[in-house]
Amino acid sequence: MQLKFKRDVLASALQTVAGVVPSRTPKDILKNTKLVVETGSAVLMGTDTEIGMRYQIPEVETESTGEVLLPTARLTQILREVMSEEVILDVSEEMLEIHAGQSEFRLPVEDPREFPDVAPFNAENCYAISGLALRQAIKRVAFAADDESTRYALGGIFMELSPTQIVLAATDSRRLAVMHSMSGVQGDVSETKSVVLPRKAMTLLERSIEGDDSEILIAPGDNDVVIRSGGCMIYTRLVEGRFPNFRDVLPSETPVNIDLVSGPFHNLVRQSQIVTSDESRGVDFVFSSGLVTLKSQAADIGQSKVELPIDYDGEELAIMFDPRFVAEFLRVLEPETTVNLGLIGGEDPAVFRCGEEYKYVIMPLARDA
Amino acid sequence: MQLKFKRDVLASALQTVAGVVPSRTPKDILKNTKLVVETGSAVLMGTDTEIGMRYQIPEVETESTGEVLLPTARLTQILREVMSEEVILDVSEEMLEIHAGQSEFRLPVEDPREFPDVAPFNAENCYAISGLALRQAIKRVAFAADDESTRYALGGIFMELSPTQIVLAATDSRRLAVMHSMSGVQGDVSETKSVVLPRKAMTLLERSIEGDDSEILIAPGDNDVVIRSGGCMIYTRLVEGRFPNFRDVLPSETPVNIDLVSGPFHNLVRQSQIVTSDESRGVDFVFSSGLVTLKSQAADIGQSKVELPIDYDGEELAIMFDPRFVAEFLRVLEPETTVNLGLIGGEDPAVFRCGEEYKYVIMPLARDA
Repeated sequence: MQLKFKRDVLASALQTVAGVVPSRTPKDILKNTKLVVETGSAVLMGTDTEIGMRYQIPEVETESTGEVLLPTARLTQILREVMSEEVILDVSEEMLEIHAGQSEFRLPVEDPREFPDVAPFNAENCYAISGLALRQAIKRVAFAADDESTRYALGGIFMELSPTQIVLAATDSRRLAVMHSMSGVQGDVSETKSVVLPRKAMTLLERSIEGDDSEILIAPGDNDVVIRSGGCMIYTRLVEGRFPNFRDVLPSETPVNIDLVSGPFHNLVRQSQIVTSDESRGVDFVFSSGLVTLKSQAADIGQSKVELPIDYDGEELAIMFDPRFVAEFLRVLEPETTVNLGLIGGEDPAVFRCGEEYKYVIMPLARDA
Repeated sequence: MQLKFKRDVLASALQTVAGVVPSRTPKDILKNTKLVVETGSAVLMGTDTEIGMRYQIPEVETESTGEVLLPTARLTQILREVMSEEVILDVSEEMLEIHAGQSEFRLPVEDPREFPDVAPFNAENCYAISGLALRQAIKRVAFAADDESTRYALGGIFMELSPTQIVLAATDSRRLAVMHSMSGVQGDVSETKSVVLPRKAMTLLERSIEGDDSEILIAPGDNDVVIRSGGCMIYTRLVEGRFPNFRDVLPSETPVNIDLVSGPFHNLVRQSQIVTSDESRGVDFVFSSGLVTLKSQAADIGQSKVELPIDYDGEELAIMFDPRFVAEFLRVLEPETTVNLGLIGGEDPAVFRCGEEYKYVIMPLARDA
């Protein structure tokens, strides 16, 4: 089998699929990516057995068909270092030959029949969402998931799909991010479906979205989901376990509402983080007329008091947060974004809102006696 | 004691001195930097006890005198996050107060009298070298030193100072870098002195050099060296032990001489490195009429053969190198630099030359069987 690729096209395909390839695995064969060639079309696949990816490579020149396992890491290095515009792969049963300008590499290859299959995207009926909206939604919720949790399904991202909107949510039980995005359908879909996806699958999906006008198709099954993002298809098993009923946590009415500009407030929170420690995580957020004051104190480290003028003329209200939770939220926003902070009292959940579509709830810390 | 600084001036001084501050040390007090204020002048000091640095901070406003230990890491964070142009330090016996715009930090401080003294630069007679030349010389030799060596003084950089030239050299016994730079003197100096300096001191010195027209003053003593680089003074103990007699290793005449352009040749060497392993380090460099061919082969990984046209019409000559040694040398050169490679035979040391002033010798690897 002989194939001719544009070097940058093959390099970009390999880089995308490499995202799913496990760096450490007891199954060495998974460190490869599988290239399957059918008349004039080449598909690159990678999988960690939980999550799989298929990538349709454009602009391949070949008259052969067949398949080969590409050694992902080494081929990535080769494509980074060689200078030629075109790369020729010459595949035999046991050897992959790479020709690029005046460079030749011969790499032994494993048996492609031993590589786990990656399911294709064949759905005719599925949900559809703009790539731009989905990328923003993933960015705005994924950070709140809890990779280390084995409770419920907190390591995953909750996704509720309906014909008009998609809801993403993630929580580690101390904070919760919820994002609503408009959606549509392709084919015949009328029901609402809820699934929980691994964070890794969502991060790969976010990275796969190219350009601002792409449309992402999502087809949930009983135990898995297949997603089409341009030439890239992602298959993922669902996360098992119950996702908390997060809608109960969203405060419906908040008597105190304060507008904050994301950038300066983020800077203030980062300042307050300097004088915290593993033992003294809490920072006091004091909202008073025209001013927010952040106070922190940690044994051996010292104290800090940092202030920012705000547009607020109500009564003083103090609430203690883990500043990391506030900073992680502010970091995913553009600095000029206006955020509305809704408060009930110093011991009630606080909710940050960007319009009606994005909400972020933080549980306050208890003050020490 | 109260002092007013420009924030960016203090931040830059702290960043420079922080280079010498040990990140791990059993002596916690060394994680501080010491600020000493005398009428209108402020000096910041740091030390790991082997190497010390004094930095004269310009543009400080104060009417007090005194000294204080600044917690380096935390003050660096504060100066990075606060937004005001000016920063005020308010120092009492046990507390450092930092005022920056609407931000206040109170940090406990340790006793400055317990901080080791850093010797100042008082020499009247010393060697002088342009900052630009010294920075290039350090960059061109430091990578060849062997941090892990306890043999001889291979962990250090050899420096031979004379009234007209400074010679720097470093080796790990398998390769050797030697750089000659023009120098002068200040005051009354006529002798030639040889010292071996810790690599860390040389790297700090390289980073301290600001601007292209600075002059560096070097005053070697019996057990230490003090160096003045603009407002920065570096004190370092000498490395003990004998430095190898490297002049014996420099081939005087090489029958084969080939000009190579650094950038493309570096790229070729990086390509050849892809198919090497810890067990099979060697790459065959074959110079033939009009062409250099690099061949590598490693069990389980494969083979490579990469070529580049060169200006050479002599007999074929093959020599095996560890490609890392060649790549590390080429990396410190500008890509358009022409390098002359001087060869005697496949089992003799090879010498790369950039003009007469910079030489880099590599011992070839032995071919198996």
